[in-house]
Amino acid sequence: MIRVAILGSTGSIGESALKVMERHPDRFEVVALAANRSVRELEDQARRFRPLRVVVADEEAFEACRDNGTHWSGGREALVDAASMPEADVVLNALVGFAGLEPSIAALRAGKRLALANKESLVTGGDLLMEAMEDGEGELIPVDSEHSAILQCLGGEDPDQIQRLVITASGGPFRGWSRERLAAVGPEDALRHPTWDMGAKITIDSATLANKALEVIEAHVLYGIPYDRIDAVVHPQSVVHSFVEFVDGSVMAQLGFPTMELPILYALTYPDRLDDPDLRTFDPVRASPLTFEAVDTDAFPLFRIGVEAGRTGGTAPTVFNAANEVAVDAFLRGKVDFPGMAQVVEEALSRTEVRPVTELEVILEADRAARRSAIDSVARRTPAGN
Amino acid sequence: MIRVAILGSTGSIGESALKVMERHPDRFEVVALAANRSVRELEDQARRFRPLRVVVADEEAFEACRDNGTHWSGGREALVDAASMPEADVVLNALVGFAGLEPSIAALRAGKRLALANKESLVTGGDLLMEAMEDGEGELIPVDSEHSAILQCLGGEDPDQIQRLVITASGGPFRGWSRERLAAVGPEDALRHPTWDMGAKITIDSATLANKALEVIEAHVLYGIPYDRIDAVVHPQSVVHSFVEFVDGSVMAQLGFPTMELPILYALTYPDRLDDPDLRTFDPVRASPLTFEAVDTDAFPLFRIGVEAGRTGGTAPTVFNAANEVAVDAFLRGKVDFPGMAQVVEEALSRTEVRPVTELEVILEADRAARRSAIDSVARRTPAGN
Repeated sequence: MIRVAILGSTGSIGESALKVMERHPDRFEVVALAANRSVRELEDQARRFRPLRVVVADEEAFEACRDNGTHWSGGREALVDAASMPEADVVLNALVGFAGLEPSIAALRAGKRLALANKESLVTGGDLLMEAMEDGEGELIPVDSEHSAILQCLGGEDPDQIQRLVITASGGPFRGWSRERLAAVGPEDALRHPTWDMGAKITIDSATLANKALEVIEAHVLYGIPYDRIDAVVHPQSVVHSFVEFVDGSVMAQLGFPTMELPILYALTYPDRLDDPDLRTFDPVRASPLTFEAVDTDAFPLFRIGVEAGRTGGTAPTVFNAANEVAVDAFLRGKVDFPGMAQVVEEALSRTEVRPVTELEVILEADRAARRSAIDSVARRTPAGN
Repeated sequence: MIRVAILGSTGSIGESALKVMERHPDRFEVVALAANRSVRELEDQARRFRPLRVVVADEEAFEACRDNGTHWSGGREALVDAASMPEADVVLNALVGFAGLEPSIAALRAGKRLALANKESLVTGGDLLMEAMEDGEGELIPVDSEHSAILQCLGGEDPDQIQRLVITASGGPFRGWSRERLAAVGPEDALRHPTWDMGAKITIDSATLANKALEVIEAHVLYGIPYDRIDAVVHPQSVVHSFVEFVDGSVMAQLGFPTMELPILYALTYPDRLDDPDLRTFDPVRASPLTFEAVDTDAFPLFRIGVEAGRTGGTAPTVFNAANEVAVDAFLRGKVDFPGMAQVVEEALSRTEVRPVTELEVILEADRAARRSAIDSVARRTPAGN
C-alpha cells in the first residue's frame, strides 16, 4: 500500500491523481488532502477518500469553514506539516506557483518521495531542493509529462550518457502566429489549449511558451545537463513527451496520448509500473502524423527570456517565475496584452539584482522584489479606464 | 578492449561493424573475420585489421586461395570454431540465411556475447539458442535495428512489464501498392529500398514484408511476448525503430536516422554507450513528419504467413524461412513473379509436416525438406522458355 499526501488536490493534477488512485484502491491510500482555498471541493474529496488530514492553505478560507472536524487544519504551516507527516510515503506536490517550494523542501527533508508537479519548486529553489533531498534521503520524481518522459527515456542509465535533451512543446493555441497577430489575443483565446486540459495559469504559460522555459530550467536542475544541450521543439500533437539523445546517437522517446494520469501513476509506482488498462490507449496509426517544428522565439520571447534566466542562475529564475505569475494574472484580468507579458517579465529581470541562492530567505526576497517590480510594470502599462 | 569476431564481415552489416570499430581503435580489436566466399574483400579486410583468424566458409572458394597464410581456414567447421575461439569476447554474427544458426549456438555455448544480426538463428533455432545460452552462460544481444530498439526501450525493466511490442516496417518500395500492381514487379524494382541500404536478400524480404514476419518471430523468442501482443506498423521514414508499450500505458520508442552502425555499436558496448559524434545526426525537425500505417496483409501476404508459422511453432518457422530463401532466390533469377514468392512459401508450409524442435538435426531436416518443396514449386511455376 502506497500512502499518498496530495497537496493541491482540487486542481487539475490533484483530480487526475485521485482518479488514478481510485482505480487502484488496493495499492493506494490517500493520507492527506490539501488545497489553497477550494473548501467545497475539499469537503467532497474528504468524504470520498477519508484522509487523516485535510489542509486549507489560505487562512481566510480556513476560518470560513471552522466546523470541518478535528483533522482539518489551516495555513501555510499546516501545508508544510502535511508534506512531512509520518503517515505519508509519497507527497504529490501539485500546488500552483511559488507556494509549492516550502512543502517540497519539507517533504524531501522528511525522507519522502516527492512526486513533483509544482514547476516552481525546482525553478526557484533547485539547489535547496537537491540539498534537502541529500539531507533527508528523500527522492524526487517529476510528474510533468516532459520530465517523466526524460526519466523513462533514461531507463536507469547514467545521466552522464545523455548528449542532449529535447523537450517537446505543443506550441499552444497560437502556434504559427506572428508577433503582430498575437498583440490582439485575449485571455479567452489563450485559455483554449489544443491538446492538454489544464489549469488557467499553466494554460497561459503554455500559450506563451514560458512553460517550456520553466521546463528547460527544471530539466537542467533534475539531470545536471548544461543549457546548451537542452532544446525544445514544437510538437503540436503532444504525443511524444520528450526525447533523450545519448552519446552514441541513439534517441529515446516516451509517447502516449495526452493524459496526466500516466506520469502521475509512474511517479507513484516508480521504478515499477502498475497494470492500468484505462491508460493503454496509444495507437501509432491513430497518432500519425507526428510533426516537429522549431520554436519561434521571436513570436514567443518568454521562452528565450526564461532560458536566459536559467543560464544566469542564482535568483534569476525566481525573478522570471514571479514576474511571469504577475504578468499572467494581469493578462487574465485584461490589464496587459499578450506581448505585454514578456515585456513585464523582461523589465523585472533587468531591474532586479541577481544573487546566489544560499537560503530560502534569498528566494523569498527575490520573489517579493520581482512581484513588486512586475506589478509596477503592469500599472504603468494598464490603459486608462481599465 | 573488446575483442570481436565478425562472421559475415564482407556483407553490409560486417562492413558497417568494421567502420564503427575503425573509429574506436582504442576500444575494439578484430580477432576474426569470416565470410562465405568473398575472398578478395576478406584479403583487404585482413590487411586492414590483422585478425588472428580469417575464415572462408565456402570450401571451394577457400581451395582457390590456399596461399593466404596459416591463420586462414576454410569450411563450415572453421566458422563454428571461430565463433567459439577463446580470444573473442563478442561474436558478431552477420551471416546471411540459415547458415548462421550453428555458429550462433557455438558462440553462446562458449559463453560469448553473441551480437546477432542473423535473423534465421532465432527464427529457426530459437529454443536451441536459449538452451545454449543457458548452458554456456552466453549473452544474446540483437543487432537488428528493431530488436535493438526494443532492448533499449525496455531499459532494464522486466519483460513482464511489456504489454505490447510494435515493430516498425519501412513498407519497402511498394508501400501502398495493390496485389494486382505487384504482379508486374521485377527484381530491379524490389532492390530499390527507400530508406535502408542493405544486401539483396534482406532488401527483397523488406519489399515482401517477410522480413517483418521474421522479426515478429525473433521478438517473440527474445522477449517471450505472445504473438497476439506483437504488432507491426508501416513507418515509411524508418526513424522510429520500434515501440514498446508497458502495462501502465506508457510507450517508449527508440529513434534515429537509418544506420546499422548504431545498433551494432550498442550490441558491442551494451549496457554502456560509447561516445560517437558521427552517429549523433538525429534532428526531430528534419525527421518531421513521422507517419504510421497499418500493414496491408492482402498485398503482402508473406507477413501474415510468416507470423502464422511463428504461432504454429516447432519447425514451421524453419520451413517458412527456408522456402522464403528459395522463393527470393527464384524471384531474383526471374523464375517466379512477386506474388509467386508467397505462393511458393505457402505451398511449402502446407506440404511439410511440423515437428517440435528437439535438436539441431530436426531443423536441418525441416530446412532441407522445405527447400526441396519450394524448389519443386518454383520449377512448376517457371514459365516455359525461362
